[in-house]
Amino acid sequence: MTENRSDQIARGRPGEDPGPAPAPPDLRRIGANPDFWYPVALSRSVRKEGVAAAVFAGERIALYRAKSGAVHALEDRCAHRQVPLSMGVVDGETLRCCYHAWAYRGDGRISQIPYLAKGDARPPRGVRAYPVREAYGLVFVFPGDPEKAEATPLPDVPAHASPSYRTMTFSRTVRCHYSFLHENLLDMNHQFLHRGVVGKLQPKLLGYESGPASVEARYLFTHTGGKRNRSASLLAAEGLGGQPSSDVMTIRTEYPYQTLDLVPEKADHPALRLWAVYVPEDAEQRVCHAYGLLMIEKPRIPAALSVAWPFIRHFTERVFAEDRMAVEAEQRAWDEQGEDRNHEVFSLILDVRDVLRANGVPLAPRTTPVTRSCEGLAP
Amino acid sequence: MTENRSDQIARGRPGEDPGPAPAPPDLRRIGANPDFWYPVALSRSVRKEGVAAAVFAGERIALYRAKSGAVHALEDRCAHRQVPLSMGVVDGETLRCCYHAWAYRGDGRISQIPYLAKGDARPPRGVRAYPVREAYGLVFVFPGDPEKAEATPLPDVPAHASPSYRTMTFSRTVRCHYSFLHENLLDMNHQFLHRGVVGKLQPKLLGYESGPASVEARYLFTHTGGKRNRSASLLAAEGLGGQPSSDVMTIRTEYPYQTLDLVPEKADHPALRLWAVYVPEDAEQRVCHAYGLLMIEKPRIPAALSVAWPFIRHFTERVFAEDRMAVEAEQRAWDEQGEDRNHEVFSLILDVRDVLRANGVPLAPRTTPVTRSCEGLAP
Amino acid sequence: MTENRSDQIARGRPGEDPGPAPAPPDLRRIGANPDFWYPVALSRSVRKEGVAAAVFAGERIALYRAKSGAVHALEDRCAHRQVPLSMGVVDGETLRCCYHAWAYRGDGRISQIPYLAKGDARPPRGVRAYPVREAYGLVFVFPGDPEKAEATPLPDVPAHASPSYRTMTFSRTVRCHYSFLHENLLDMNHQFLHRGVVGKLQPKLLGYESGPASVEARYLFTHTGGKRNRSASLLAAEGLGGQPSSDVMTIRTEYPYQTLDLVPEKADHPALRLWAVYVPEDAEQRVCHAYGLLMIEKPRIPAALSVAWPFIRHFTERVFAEDRMAVEAEQRAWDEQGEDRNHEVFSLILDVRDVLRANGVPLAPRTTPVTRSCEGLAP
Repeated sequence: MTENRSDQIARGRPGEDPGPAPAPPDLRRIGANPDFWYPVALSRSVRKEGVAAAVFAGERIALYRAKSGAVHALEDRCAHRQVPLSMGVVDGETLRCCYHAWAYRGDGRISQIPYLAKGDARPPRGVRAYPVREAYGLVFVFPGDPEKAEATPLPDVPAHASPSYRTMTFSRTVRCHYSFLHENLLDMNHQFLHRGVVGKLQPKLLGYESGPASVEARYLFTHTGGKRNRSASLLAAEGLGGQPSSDVMTIRTEYPYQTLDLVPEKADHPALRLWAVYVPEDAEQRVCHAYGLLMIEKPRIPAALSVAWPFIRHFTERVFAEDRMAVEAEQRAWDEQGEDRNHEVFSLILDVRDVLRANGVPLAPRTTPVTRSCEGLAP
Repeated sequence: MTENRSDQIARGRPGEDPGPAPAPPDLRRIGANPDFWYPVALSRSVRKEGVAAAVFAGERIALYRAKSGAVHALEDRCAHRQVPLSMGVVDGETLRCCYHAWAYRGDGRISQIPYLAKGDARPPRGVRAYPVREAYGLVFVFPGDPEKAEATPLPDVPAHASPSYRTMTFSRTVRCHYSFLHENLLDMNHQFLHRGVVGKLQPKLLGYESGPASVEARYLFTHTGGKRNRSASLLAAEGLGGQPSSDVMTIRTEYPYQTLDLVPEKADHPALRLWAVYVPEDAEQRVCHAYGLLMIEKPRIPAALSVAWPFIRHFTERVFAEDRMAVEAEQRAWDEQGEDRNHEVFSLILDVRDVLRANGVPLAPRTTPVTRSCEGLAP
Repeated sequence: MTENRSDQIARGRPGEDPGPAPAPPDLRRIGANPDFWYPVALSRSVRKEGVAAAVFAGERIALYRAKSGAVHALEDRCAHRQVPLSMGVVDGETLRCCYHAWAYRGDGRISQIPYLAKGDARPPRGVRAYPVREAYGLVFVFPGDPEKAEATPLPDVPAHASPSYRTMTFSRTVRCHYSFLHENLLDMNHQFLHRGVVGKLQPKLLGYESGPASVEARYLFTHTGGKRNRSASLLAAEGLGGQPSSDVMTIRTEYPYQTLDLVPEKADHPALRLWAVYVPEDAEQRVCHAYGLLMIEKPRIPAALSVAWPFIRHFTERVFAEDRMAVEAEQRAWDEQGEDRNHEVFSLILDVRDVLRANGVPLAPRTTPVTRSCEGLAP
């Protein structure tokens, strides 16, 4: 467990006198570190010779799939008149702006301006291109320093390719800072929120470990009465054939990704594995896009999973809708209060806050026109 | 009639030279004085073991009715993660936050955190609680200094309990500063606005009196032709059985409340009494919630009132909709002009403006995140 | 062709060294010069004894047609309580405010306050009136210095009254700075945008001329294959009876108006003439209202034009919808980038930008309440 936590004062432990330590920066003003691979679209949403608009932390990105099938990611503006390239048209391996038909290659360079004549001004060279990769049915881009892209591995999601598991993919906009979602999943004491869907669950923290870029918590889940959703039972039991019982849930933030493994009582491997990441959409990072891969172990009778599949999706969507309601309420409170007034008491959550702070990047001050006009008026 | 009016210059009376008096503060930047009892909900909207969200001037309030039937009013945020307590669940006499199930008593103190363990940080003590009372079918809170609550009387609405009157309750959001509504009701020269509903009415000011916290005006209303709405006739006539005639209308702002009494020509007591208050909703007080109790004298044949009731409501709603259209147009003009450019000529309205200024409180400057980011950028 | 262009640097011609010239002002911060006649409504939208709300660059204007048939244009606020006069009622030659029935004459002076009594404050004199004229089915106002109105001619639209032409009128809000529309029409290299509607067109610049307040470009249009819309053929051909062929299109910005003439290959006069102006709606001029008069030569068989009329309108609307999509995307990019990052290469477009800059007026800094509260906070 890390000991150099920066928010000792805020925690207010009796008897402690940490001295005049500076207040840690507001977690909700810490941006996601761009030097990682982040999904920005489902692969299937970028169709052959098709175009899609994506975004990372306010940077608009035009994705297009060339005739060859390769996906490219360009800054989403034509260098000419700033019209989004995601409104454009694929032409072979290039992307043409819809307005005056300027053509761009996958590396962002302009390959043709159809009408340029002698005497016209020198055209710009092109726009930024992002390193891009496809994996797990997702399109990943590397929004940070492109020189680091090659050496930075894609996240490892081993169960995705395993024949023992089947994957359900989630893609949803959530109107909150990504950190609220890390805290939500790691703090299983919020089962009260899901009482209507999963019944009365008694999570017990078995232990946790924190590192410079990770926090991992293990909980024992026991169903203690009340209604229990059938899909929850399906998910919690050994494969899909067992009886409700005590399960061990391991949740891990490994910056910037998050995983959850659920091992049923008598099993030696997970019946359910979740991989998730929360990708900021806007420059202020008050909205994120949650991508999730939920991998469920196939039961002995494979058809059972096909039958259960829509129910599992429905159940998972309901739980996620409740989580979203809570974290979006947290964001609205932050927006109104203008700062993070959370008064956290749970040690491992304090740790994950430190991890997110230490591995993220400070957000630039607002640079919207409103702010700029204020600047202009200041003496 | 008060003589120390602060806007003599603006009134521009010929021959007067008030000297270089400072401009009075903009009335629309004066907040409602919080040291009074204000309704924030209808009693019936806080059901047994139910929760409701309310607000006073930007302060969000969670109302809940405990198992015992008592209504409590808490600051609408959990001390833990700031999620609104109005999303919570009543548990006996306490209110539990929906997220991690922290429980609060009616005095705002935390009574239970279900999972708190040794080694966790010290939790906060609770949240603010508001003095709360129920009367006239309304839930009143005291948003100001709680020590003054006991000594401050609830508004007196004597006809409400009288067997001679029946009460119609109104509750509507109006997108304007509360002062526009005081001016609207007191200045009966605006009958032109209602010409389509009430016909051509000729209001004549009989006289008015102003005090430090009140303005009272008496008008004679004579119907001078044109279409006359049947419900208006019903309301204006003696009880519900008389003939259209000249009525005396007395309108009074007694800070912060407002009343209207209508006495038909040959009657010695009001056939109709209105009590109203305009409760600011947002911190800038550009939106308010109008609560009204309209008490109508029961006619000799009581069934007649029951028959007329929906017509009276319809008529009253139409008149109010026109008033709302006008005062909201005034607020939009203020928003665009950025200041109060009203050029009032009517003496008693100048008086009520002074009363509202003198008894209100200056609004704090905006403290939204937008403003704060401007502050940060100023050198 | 003008040589004193202010954005030589931005054009970056090789070999040029214009020295440390100051950056030209951002074109999108240049307001339309108010000392011209601008349409603000269709004549038919101001019915007899009717009222209409109009706007020029954030100045709200109440139009009313008096009993005599004359249209008047007043500042759209009652001098009393700032309620819009466009909510009012025409009374003979005057306009009464809907709220307290103050009456205004067409010159903006108050002609009656129905209830003013001795002892009341001195009323204001009135509101601003705009010079107003009707022509071509449009209501024009002169928003600038009224003393210049008389000497400033209305725009000349000769074909409107000609028996050889029939006029189609357009009136649409477009969410962009007016300059984007001037650039759009003058740069015919954007035909790629309309490829779905008009097929593959090959515009060739024949030449252009620039003056202090005008730019005029001539293009040769040749249809080079692909689908061709029937209505486009109708429009492009000699009258309505010819064969598709090469047409000469002359487009001219004559500040602040714009015209387009299309002369079919073997004709000696235009088969189609467009007159257009883009009137700013908001104070920041990020939204404009496009008024267009499209005059189409009547064919030898006049009935043919009546049959074709709805198709021509449909075709024109589709083309305009595509243009609007592009120019509104340009405005959104400007809003996000906070400045004009267009990298124009086409010489005549650089010229029209200079014309619009030189003949326009700088926009005042934002004066919304938000900005003002920022000002207040700066030290």
